[in-house]
Amino acid sequence: MPTVQAYAAPSAKAPLAPFSFERREPGPHDVLIDILYCGVCHSDIHSARGEWGPHGLYPMVPGHEIVGKVAQVGGSVTKYKVGDSVGVGCFVDSCRECGQCHAGEEQFCDRGMVGTYNAKDRHGAVTQGGYSTRITVDENYVLRIPESLPLDRAAPLLCAGITTYSPLRHFGVKKGDKVAVVGLGGLGHMGVKLAKKMGAEVTVLSTSPSKKDDALALGAHHFAATSDKATFKQLAGSFDFILDTVSAQHDYNAYLNLLKVDGTMVLVGMPEHPSPLSAAPLVMRRRKLAGSLIGGIRETQEMLDFCAEHNVTSDIEVIPIQKINEAYERMLKGDVRYRFVIDTASLRK
Amino acid sequence: MPTVQAYAAPSAKAPLAPFSFERREPGPHDVLIDILYCGVCHSDIHSARGEWGPHGLYPMVPGHEIVGKVAQVGGSVTKYKVGDSVGVGCFVDSCRECGQCHAGEEQFCDRGMVGTYNAKDRHGAVTQGGYSTRITVDENYVLRIPESLPLDRAAPLLCAGITTYSPLRHFGVKKGDKVAVVGLGGLGHMGVKLAKKMGAEVTVLSTSPSKKDDALALGAHHFAATSDKATFKQLAGSFDFILDTVSAQHDYNAYLNLLKVDGTMVLVGMPEHPSPLSAAPLVMRRRKLAGSLIGGIRETQEMLDFCAEHNVTSDIEVIPIQKINEAYERMLKGDVRYRFVIDTASLRK
Repeated sequence: MPTVQAYAAPSAKAPLAPFSFERREPGPHDVLIDILYCGVCHSDIHSARGEWGPHGLYPMVPGHEIVGKVAQVGGSVTKYKVGDSVGVGCFVDSCRECGQCHAGEEQFCDRGMVGTYNAKDRHGAVTQGGYSTRITVDENYVLRIPESLPLDRAAPLLCAGITTYSPLRHFGVKKGDKVAVVGLGGLGHMGVKLAKKMGAEVTVLSTSPSKKDDALALGAHHFAATSDKATFKQLAGSFDFILDTVSAQHDYNAYLNLLKVDGTMVLVGMPEHPSPLSAAPLVMRRRKLAGSLIGGIRETQEMLDFCAEHNVTSDIEVIPIQKINEAYERMLKGDVRYRFVIDTASLRK
Repeated sequence: MPTVQAYAAPSAKAPLAPFSFERREPGPHDVLIDILYCGVCHSDIHSARGEWGPHGLYPMVPGHEIVGKVAQVGGSVTKYKVGDSVGVGCFVDSCRECGQCHAGEEQFCDRGMVGTYNAKDRHGAVTQGGYSTRITVDENYVLRIPESLPLDRAAPLLCAGITTYSPLRHFGVKKGDKVAVVGLGGLGHMGVKLAKKMGAEVTVLSTSPSKKDDALALGAHHFAATSDKATFKQLAGSFDFILDTVSAQHDYNAYLNLLKVDGTMVLVGMPEHPSPLSAAPLVMRRRKLAGSLIGGIRETQEMLDFCAEHNVTSDIEVIPIQKINEAYERMLKGDVRYRFVIDTASLRK
């Protein structure tokens, strides 16, 4: 069985540390991938630190923004061959039998998708993520990375990219729509780039006025500081669509009032605590508040192809795995523009 | 000018009492209507008692579920003639120039619809509602009551009917959909009847187990008591659509969890206070929480025609105007099945 080098959280309370384990031998439908880069998502921190519940499976190797090269394929694999550039996102399997799986919406699998890490797969083994040198995945849960995309900058597309692409597409954002992106972090910066390439007129709403220059450099047409209360008066009823990427508690009502009649605000972040919601902003203008969760395999491939066609990648800071604990601390302070990506060559030294 | 007999709230603190005033003389585009019946809506109580803000215009004649016969028409009126059965709903005018008005969504008029009572019209006069013997309304804001509908039982369609019909139609409820109606009052009982006639499989969710027989008699296929916590486990992920008619504070999260993936819950009630909303029920299943507000003139006419075609009317208790204060008290206790309707003959004695 393929032995891999990795970094794992030994427990919810301990920093990540070197760890070695074995991946399963590729079965007939499996692809063994040499991981080259892995993006660092906020949910890696939540999971590693047990902040999403007491059921963490330790030692835990996080990472679900994986890109690499196919190193070996099972006998029945038809989609990939050795040397192909591929990616793996937030899940590595699902039941394949329910209506959601048949519809290509595996993220909503009736029996639950199998997370790329911190989950149990159909063989009963604990899944381990991309802060590692290799991974074995069924070919149906592997994505193709288009040739034109640089692999390091493509890694965050596997989570931050699809998380923002899917709601923009699903809720029908189109050319000329006025779109606001709330929060300019790993998700938000992808939302700005993708919405712009879909032809929308994009406004970034951020608590930090200091992010104005960055927002415009990323392609946003406008910027408004939400620390200024006048923003909520000036922009009332302005937007067709709001992509809310904030995972800290905030006032949904204030943002809903920025939507036009029939406008939609979509949450992709999950604040730990609920926020008070008033019916009036929804009722008086027939607005919608929705949620969205990553995307299915088919849509993730569509997103990657869209990014290749429109030259969209993530803004990243590449780090060696040895800096992962420091990177977590910097992420918690918002000190990254806009995604850390681990160069797994640092695991092979 | 036509003098009318009415009941008005003299102030927020006083009970309704007899009141006489003059309607405007019908202009070229106006219809003068002899009011025969007027439904009693919860919002009448909120408005009369100043519970929706300190800007009540007193003396206030409530009532926006108006049916009657055309008594006189202006020289340019083309849609109605003397003797026609007509209705007036929650608004009697709008700007007629904005995108919403052009789209037939006058309830969302950019400049604000002109409420049937407790508002100022384009002439600067205070509007007065249907607890009165006559009303003058521009023909474009008058509805035709189909001949087959009994006028007393049709009155509540002008608010309770369209308030529930519009979201069912707008959000695309169709044959075979699993629909829950939360709350079995004036709005809820119309929601049950309308959703059933649209071909949905209807479940009533109510805090009162005692309403089960009524719910089934109204046409619901199923009933579940929300006082029983097991209901929320048993019905998790069950519904395509939830019509939430409750205007008291309640836990939106619990009801959202009853929706399938991509399901929609629509609020038509407006609780006075906000409720804590968690992102997870929306995000994890891509659900939507929306609001809906009555409907435009065109859709209201469509609803009336639908009700005539499918023999849908409101369940009512007819009262003389002299019992209006008692009726308000009974409504606040939920003691009406399901709508009081004033017989305005009692104002002509």
